[in-house]
Amino acid sequence: MSTTTRDPKAITPKSEDFDRWYVDVVRRAELADYTPVGGCMVVRPYGWGLWENVRDALDAMIKRTGHENMQFPLFIPESLLTKEAEHVEGFAPEVAWVTQGGQKKLEERLAVRPTSETIICTLYADWIHSWRDLPVLINQWANVVRWEKRTRLFLRTTEFFWQEGHTFHETTDEAKFEVEQMLGCYRELAEEWLAMAVIPGRKTESEKFAGADYTMSIEAIMSDGLALQSGTSHHLGQNFTRAYNITYTGRDNTVQHPFQTSWGLSTRIIGGVIMSHGDDRGLVLPPRVAPVQVVVVPIERSNDPEGTEAVRAACVRLEEEAAGRVRLRVDRREGHRPGEKYAHWELRGVPLRIVVGSRDLAEGSVSLVRRVDGAEMRLPLAEVGERLPALLDEVQVLLRERALKLLEDHSREVATLDELRGAFADGPVFANAPFCDRPECEVEVKAAVHAVTVRCLRTDRSGEGRPCLACGTPAEHIAVIARAY
Amino acid sequence: MSTTTRDPKAITPKSEDFDRWYVDVVRRAELADYTPVGGCMVVRPYGWGLWENVRDALDAMIKRTGHENMQFPLFIPESLLTKEAEHVEGFAPEVAWVTQGGQKKLEERLAVRPTSETIICTLYADWIHSWRDLPVLINQWANVVRWEKRTRLFLRTTEFFWQEGHTFHETTDEAKFEVEQMLGCYRELAEEWLAMAVIPGRKTESEKFAGADYTMSIEAIMSDGLALQSGTSHHLGQNFTRAYNITYTGRDNTVQHPFQTSWGLSTRIIGGVIMSHGDDRGLVLPPRVAPVQVVVVPIERSNDPEGTEAVRAACVRLEEEAAGRVRLRVDRREGHRPGEKYAHWELRGVPLRIVVGSRDLAEGSVSLVRRVDGAEMRLPLAEVGERLPALLDEVQVLLRERALKLLEDHSREVATLDELRGAFADGPVFANAPFCDRPECEVEVKAAVHAVTVRCLRTDRSGEGRPCLACGTPAEHIAVIARAY
Repeated sequence: MSTTTRDPKAITPKSEDFDRWYVDVVRRAELADYTPVGGCMVVRPYGWGLWENVRDALDAMIKRTGHENMQFPLFIPESLLTKEAEHVEGFAPEVAWVTQGGQKKLEERLAVRPTSETIICTLYADWIHSWRDLPVLINQWANVVRWEKRTRLFLRTTEFFWQEGHTFHETTDEAKFEVEQMLGCYRELAEEWLAMAVIPGRKTESEKFAGADYTMSIEAIMSDGLALQSGTSHHLGQNFTRAYNITYTGRDNTVQHPFQTSWGLSTRIIGGVIMSHGDDRGLVLPPRVAPVQVVVVPIERSNDPEGTEAVRAACVRLEEEAAGRVRLRVDRREGHRPGEKYAHWELRGVPLRIVVGSRDLAEGSVSLVRRVDGAEMRLPLAEVGERLPALLDEVQVLLRERALKLLEDHSREVATLDELRGAFADGPVFANAPFCDRPECEVEVKAAVHAVTVRCLRTDRSGEGRPCLACGTPAEHIAVIARAY
Repeated sequence: MSTTTRDPKAITPKSEDFDRWYVDVVRRAELADYTPVGGCMVVRPYGWGLWENVRDALDAMIKRTGHENMQFPLFIPESLLTKEAEHVEGFAPEVAWVTQGGQKKLEERLAVRPTSETIICTLYADWIHSWRDLPVLINQWANVVRWEKRTRLFLRTTEFFWQEGHTFHETTDEAKFEVEQMLGCYRELAEEWLAMAVIPGRKTESEKFAGADYTMSIEAIMSDGLALQSGTSHHLGQNFTRAYNITYTGRDNTVQHPFQTSWGLSTRIIGGVIMSHGDDRGLVLPPRVAPVQVVVVPIERSNDPEGTEAVRAACVRLEEEAAGRVRLRVDRREGHRPGEKYAHWELRGVPLRIVVGSRDLAEGSVSLVRRVDGAEMRLPLAEVGERLPALLDEVQVLLRERALKLLEDHSREVATLDELRGAFADGPVFANAPFCDRPECEVEVKAAVHAVTVRCLRTDRSGEGRPCLACGTPAEHIAVIARAY
């Protein structure tokens, strides 16, 4: 257990009000904040540093799987946006429109992109001619805008930041493989880098991307038992390539429409990291993406100049040993008591804290506290630098195990709507149920328990023909039913 | 000299029409292209890969000098944009306005940010309280929009991509140091990474940033003798901090307005790289930022299976030796003759080409061609992998020397307006002249020669009190007078 001074500006306890806890953490840890621009957030340096680490990890996976980054226009003329019927119907209510450029009223309104399929299809209609031009494997890191009425920092904002991958293929099977491969990258990011617990699956018709044949997602569990859709990957079939008239000459010399995918992951995942791991003292960050992995707090005493000298030397030594290997910061701020510094970095979720004091140093050691569980240990100064990577790995594993335990504790198996109601009686859970995937049954599921939805049809489990929880007919799928952000 | 096959879709020769040459290179090398969205470009993978390398180099300098990245909203409410009088007057004619969000007409128009000073000042008014909160040293990588009537790929587009740094300081001297430090980073990027020739200086009143006390810039010379403003750094004084009411309690307990700077460098610099180094065969890229530094073209003969085997093995060996050290790509495309491949990569400006043929290999060697001057050499296969970094460094140096020679050849010293006219008689030059920096004299300079402007007042030279070229009074400055993009 930690014995640190409690920050006077303490955040709302999780158990008291999870939503207020979340906003307190985001704002007081200086990850992000509200702005005078309705629905738009400012992402502050600590939050952006975290996102840069997440982005770099995912960008490496995107490149590893053969994709290249490029950049498409922010604006999309209305006439281009509206060619794919389902798509425009899905996005029209959320579009911000530019109607004036400089002093001039525009002849045609420009949408601020809510997503880029339409402009990408327009451009690739000129660039794809032959099967030799396929596959097209591209990605864009960008800001997008969707007009939102109720916003919440990172989770749902009018402007947000994401990557959107877009690919074109000769066959539907290749596109299917791509959809799964990129969902796999998202899962790798969530599990291996962010230490989250996620369930992969297919969305139902009512929850799929507007214009897609089908949508896959990973659904993460938050520590309040709610689900967070954390990354989606869409098989677009030929819906857009027909609407935008993209054709190519195939290997058999016939003219064909390519098959298409798109897939996206956004700053929303930062909200997922916070709600997966955070506690009443604030953030708890996975070491692999933490902007600061280790904070060093020197304890200096004005009546002990010799000890202070030794403390300072030890801090410099730790900095030197960490350089290029571990993101370590020494908190040399003046006018702050050690306890304030502990609380400051606990709030910010730094995985490890090293306290360097002259008494410990006299015995050649420093003390080390692990953020995730408050475990303390004393280590020889001479060894600590070398051991930091392994100590950080341990924290990463611990966090992941804790998230898996959370998912296990909140998982319920239900066979009927009554059992579904029972499962939610004591609070939000992830209910697994045989499900036939008919829209009528989905309506019944949603009506059975307040605010639940079918999050996805699990791809890691089968219904094995057991009776659908709603209609009783043999079900192919296991649906995860949960409340969601 | 190169003896490669001439690409049938050859680009317009530079000497025939420089502007058409430029657009041909940008489009045919697949750096970027026009879109159906007026004034907005699409940056294609090869162009974005180049920009990513430029961005990463500059980002490291920005972080090295103590700045942190963050992200501000894309939209700025009209009432916030208009608080600093000079600023709004400068930018209003170029703003794209969002007037509708979803189904709703907005009560207040939102500007798509042309630059972010106004929203940043609004936010920092809440975050800066004490001298302990200073300096604020932040940066944002973002897209910005300025409504342009005449656009040209990379050089002037409605949407463009840049970084904008923003800082707040206790004293004007600190801000002055910051302005110079960041101009120094831009110069380092342009000279050391992009091998360009630039002149640092201060802009005149008429050319400064709207709302700044003064603006510094680097002015690069293009191979047609025109100047390209390639990065600007502004001392904003207290103009914005007064208008946006940013105050802090100083060390002496009085309430004060901080001093502010901003500085930006954009995708425009990609245009500068193209026009600095390119030739009639296309791009010539500086090795340090080239997406592909070395291309390997295997020469396979269907009647020589044994030789083909050796060629393929040599290519794999080169890939392995380059991994993690040199960005090397083997062009294994089928159905393209070697000459086509040479032209393909020459157009794309790849610094070094290695040709691996079975006859050379039989003697243990490969041949290597340098893009910048077509110099050819034969090297032992066993050595080439190890020597590539040094060979690339040589190309980098060569390019930089060539750019400096270009600047030297195009520089003229002039003492009067007549001499200025004479200097431009045979084409665009960089004319250096003693200049008093009065607006009346600037008008006379601009009237003397078609389309010239005072690019900057050089900070690396002094007027030494010699007579101003226009009015004859003793001049402090040496102005660079040139035509510019």
